[in-house]
Amino acid sequence: MLRTHTCGELNISHLGQSVTLCGWVQKSRDLGGTTFIDVRDRYGLTQLVLNTDTDASLREKGRELGREFVIKVSGKVLERSNKNLKIPTGEVEIAVHELEILNAAKIPPFLIEDETDGGEELRAKYRYLDLRRNPIRNNLVLRHKMGQEVRKYLDALNFIEVETPVLIKSTPEGARDFVVPSRMNAGEFYALPQSPQTFKQLLMVSGFDRYFQIVKCFRDEDLRADRQPEFTQIDCELSFITQEDILNIFEGLTRHLFNTVKGIELGDFPRMQYADAMRLYGSDKPDVRFGMPFVELNDVVKGKNFSIFDNAELVVGINAKGCAEYTRKQIDELTEWLKRPQIGATGLIYCRYNTDGTLKSSVDKFYNEDELTNWAAAFEAEPGDLILILAGQTDKVRKQLNELRLEIGGRLGLRNKDTFAPLWVVDFPLLEWDEESGRYHAMHHPFTSPKPEDIAMLDTDPGNVRANAYDLVINGTEIGGGSIRIHEKGLQSLMFKHLGFSPEEAQKQFGFLLDAFEYGAPPHGGIAFGFDRLCSIFAGLDSIRDVIAFPKNNSGRDVMIDSPSTISDAQLKELSINTTV
Amino acid sequence: MLRTHTCGELNISHLGQSVTLCGWVQKSRDLGGTTFIDVRDRYGLTQLVLNTDTDASLREKGRELGREFVIKVSGKVLERSNKNLKIPTGEVEIAVHELEILNAAKIPPFLIEDETDGGEELRAKYRYLDLRRNPIRNNLVLRHKMGQEVRKYLDALNFIEVETPVLIKSTPEGARDFVVPSRMNAGEFYALPQSPQTFKQLLMVSGFDRYFQIVKCFRDEDLRADRQPEFTQIDCELSFITQEDILNIFEGLTRHLFNTVKGIELGDFPRMQYADAMRLYGSDKPDVRFGMPFVELNDVVKGKNFSIFDNAELVVGINAKGCAEYTRKQIDELTEWLKRPQIGATGLIYCRYNTDGTLKSSVDKFYNEDELTNWAAAFEAEPGDLILILAGQTDKVRKQLNELRLEIGGRLGLRNKDTFAPLWVVDFPLLEWDEESGRYHAMHHPFTSPKPEDIAMLDTDPGNVRANAYDLVINGTEIGGGSIRIHEKGLQSLMFKHLGFSPEEAQKQFGFLLDAFEYGAPPHGGIAFGFDRLCSIFAGLDSIRDVIAFPKNNSGRDVMIDSPSTISDAQLKELSINTTV
Repeated sequence: MLRTHTCGELNISHLGQSVTLCGWVQKSRDLGGTTFIDVRDRYGLTQLVLNTDTDASLREKGRELGREFVIKVSGKVLERSNKNLKIPTGEVEIAVHELEILNAAKIPPFLIEDETDGGEELRAKYRYLDLRRNPIRNNLVLRHKMGQEVRKYLDALNFIEVETPVLIKSTPEGARDFVVPSRMNAGEFYALPQSPQTFKQLLMVSGFDRYFQIVKCFRDEDLRADRQPEFTQIDCELSFITQEDILNIFEGLTRHLFNTVKGIELGDFPRMQYADAMRLYGSDKPDVRFGMPFVELNDVVKGKNFSIFDNAELVVGINAKGCAEYTRKQIDELTEWLKRPQIGATGLIYCRYNTDGTLKSSVDKFYNEDELTNWAAAFEAEPGDLILILAGQTDKVRKQLNELRLEIGGRLGLRNKDTFAPLWVVDFPLLEWDEESGRYHAMHHPFTSPKPEDIAMLDTDPGNVRANAYDLVINGTEIGGGSIRIHEKGLQSLMFKHLGFSPEEAQKQFGFLLDAFEYGAPPHGGIAFGFDRLCSIFAGLDSIRDVIAFPKNNSGRDVMIDSPSTISDAQLKELSINTTV
Repeated sequence: MLRTHTCGELNISHLGQSVTLCGWVQKSRDLGGTTFIDVRDRYGLTQLVLNTDTDASLREKGRELGREFVIKVSGKVLERSNKNLKIPTGEVEIAVHELEILNAAKIPPFLIEDETDGGEELRAKYRYLDLRRNPIRNNLVLRHKMGQEVRKYLDALNFIEVETPVLIKSTPEGARDFVVPSRMNAGEFYALPQSPQTFKQLLMVSGFDRYFQIVKCFRDEDLRADRQPEFTQIDCELSFITQEDILNIFEGLTRHLFNTVKGIELGDFPRMQYADAMRLYGSDKPDVRFGMPFVELNDVVKGKNFSIFDNAELVVGINAKGCAEYTRKQIDELTEWLKRPQIGATGLIYCRYNTDGTLKSSVDKFYNEDELTNWAAAFEAEPGDLILILAGQTDKVRKQLNELRLEIGGRLGLRNKDTFAPLWVVDFPLLEWDEESGRYHAMHHPFTSPKPEDIAMLDTDPGNVRANAYDLVINGTEIGGGSIRIHEKGLQSLMFKHLGFSPEEAQKQFGFLLDAFEYGAPPHGGIAFGFDRLCSIFAGLDSIRDVIAFPKNNSGRDVMIDSPSTISDAQLKELSINTTV
């Protein structure tokens, strides 16, 4: 080793020892005769003292140093007169007698400090410098620790990690595939996996019993803050289990992570049916750090000649506790915010429950105070509350009110990043209607089993067939989802039929799985966690970017290495492809 | 859980308990009135007893059962009269009172037994059935355990696992890249990484200090038994270290794996210079489970009018201990074997040291017994030994003799799969001459540092510049390799120049790394282990195929899922590419 210690470990117990440290110059202060330098590495920061009066060589080298120079110093550990008790090394300093510059550094394009002056683009281009900053590095250390703890927990429960292939086969179901032209099989392509779904099911057919993998997956979709073209899943599958077993085991995993990584003890996770989540929160991933459930008002408000309510499929609202003081201007702003195309509400109706006990609504023309008292009762509102109401087509109005609820929750400080509220959402629908293609799609994926009692409805009322499918939600973010799978060829073929596959297409795409189900497939099910999202929640971040060492931007580019890029004609020729640009 | 226990855990301590097991029917024997069934899962095998005389329902279901049916049985644990002490569950059996068929199974296309009757192609097509066989499954369980232990060891030494991107940039240096057309950046391509080399070096520039990753890598090369288009590396990098530190830390990792996974204590690993490995074994990855070093004979044999020796650049041989009894026919066969194009020797010269003390060579016309006595002395041969000699151009003849040494070692039983002989090969050349392109290539990769004392030779004698590069070899297989890297822009640019890059090309391909070296890059180095090969050595296998769950065949095809395959015109259009087939 070039060093005897790291920059984070020396303390009062090392006094008098001769040590050698290596690291980066964080800061240098020339006090005339004495130069103080803070040297930094991953482990911490140590103060160096150079007596430049008596040592000409130290003086010269000290003068050369700039921010981020890489140095190696030898010296003696002394007690500091001016202690810094905020850092573990703050009681000591090193009286340097030898200084070697291991590498010089140009002035970095932005400050390597916890709070930096670098903009997003600049930091992306010099990602290797941004990664030097404590907040970013700590995220990746956290991610490492989480990966280790996931493996410890699952290993102890007899899960074995099996690597599934990255070069697989393109399938039309689901999101868009990234593809890889095959040189040895001209005209043919591999696809990168969107998940190891079929492979982990085959491992169950193989009798692996309990599988997991922390694995890169790929989706060629348009990007946003919490999406990357490559992302990481904790992928799991188990045989001979029930949904209840899976919920318990992975609730256990989540609790284990919170406990070991963050020192937080979580209680039992509540469970909510999908239908209730939609009815009460307008979302299949409700943020249950706070209440503010939806109250449906059709019975209360209809038939009073207010056409907006009378013509609406659903009239539904929330009680913004303690918000009666909102000004007309604030409410108008909220209304405009709701009318933006991203949300698309047509208007907002409100009812103030003033602190003096009076009620005042934006529709006083249609509803008298007696009727408003009924509204307040429906919301269990108290003086000082503000009732906010939307009306319209059920699915749309629920989505809009979900946005409003989250916004109000945020404004009321009910969405604290240090509070963690997990929730299982269960009994998802099996299918969802897709307007564009004019057919049903699998809500989870085509391998999810319907509830046995609902199978008969596949022909008569497919949209209401429930699946043995579940999501784990934390603070309104879906961090995991899974299902009990189909393990019988007949049911799987029926499912493909309802998804619009001809028998020939089903055989061509998924014949290997249908065949496998004929050779003794056990009942099985599983779950996959979005590892990037899980890490970002643990790190208190909104975006997954900063829990990924080298993320891509919204155009799928790595601006640091400048990729993607053109390739040579020779490469194209070998791969038997042309570009059409 | 559908079961109370696995098929591998019941023993005499469970007598009298009511249990439920799930698993696959391994074997069923109807003894008339009683049916014995072996039920199997990943954990073991348990014997079931069905009293079909008294229970008509059991009788009927028992008759339906075939090999590989998936069943669930409930019953009571009884002591067996006829115990099988070879398996942990062999002292008990389950008196079944309830049998449920969870899934039927067609007769598998080959035997699901340790020794199967299935050919390679059939087993590849039904890989999910082949994976049911104990030897294959055990390999993957071993692999899981090795992965866990690698992570434990490195985590304890402050390494953190960082995921590097899979969608990166194509570079012309090294092997052929797999590429991925970018939909969002038409006409441009990502490449899949051949290794995370530049990213791990950037992590060192970022101050991560100690990085590792167990990571998939990709090379579009023609395949053979120990090559796959996608393979897995244990990839590591460290800052502020010397070569000596790296050898010690990863010798420690290897010892830890042998100790925890195989219960084998390995001593200190010997080290050998590359030049000595080539001189003594004709290989940079000598199998040192046995000796039989090369003996060079130029001084001993030249000048006796035997033109083959006189005209040869090198005359070199080995002493096949105790092989003097080889018949003329055996030696002729060996000669033919050496002359095959795969090896390409022109002939074999031998000298028998008979047990009666006489010496007899195939070139007695040129060498008398006194001279042969000198030969024998050079080989430290004893009566009963057989000296085998090749002559020719140094590089070629060393390669040929290496093959012969390994062959003889194998015949003499000196290459036992349960013996493990690790070896560090150090001081590799920096560059190697490539006939085809008429220029030097980096022997390890372009980021490897030359030995400082050899840098001056880059201009005058590039082929003899030594690198700070090292390989870990076990039993003649390279399982890891690495180097101390260049961390200065000037030296890296010089290296690119010697590899035939123009300054513009270097900047275009690797500008991000050259730039990074200007912002405070620490001295660093690392190593990568071939995880598939390491697992195959631990499993005692010659090929890496059976330590990979879903390998590809020699044409890069996955015959189970039938991939690669054609993709739709719509996909091609979206990606702005055409096929030219």
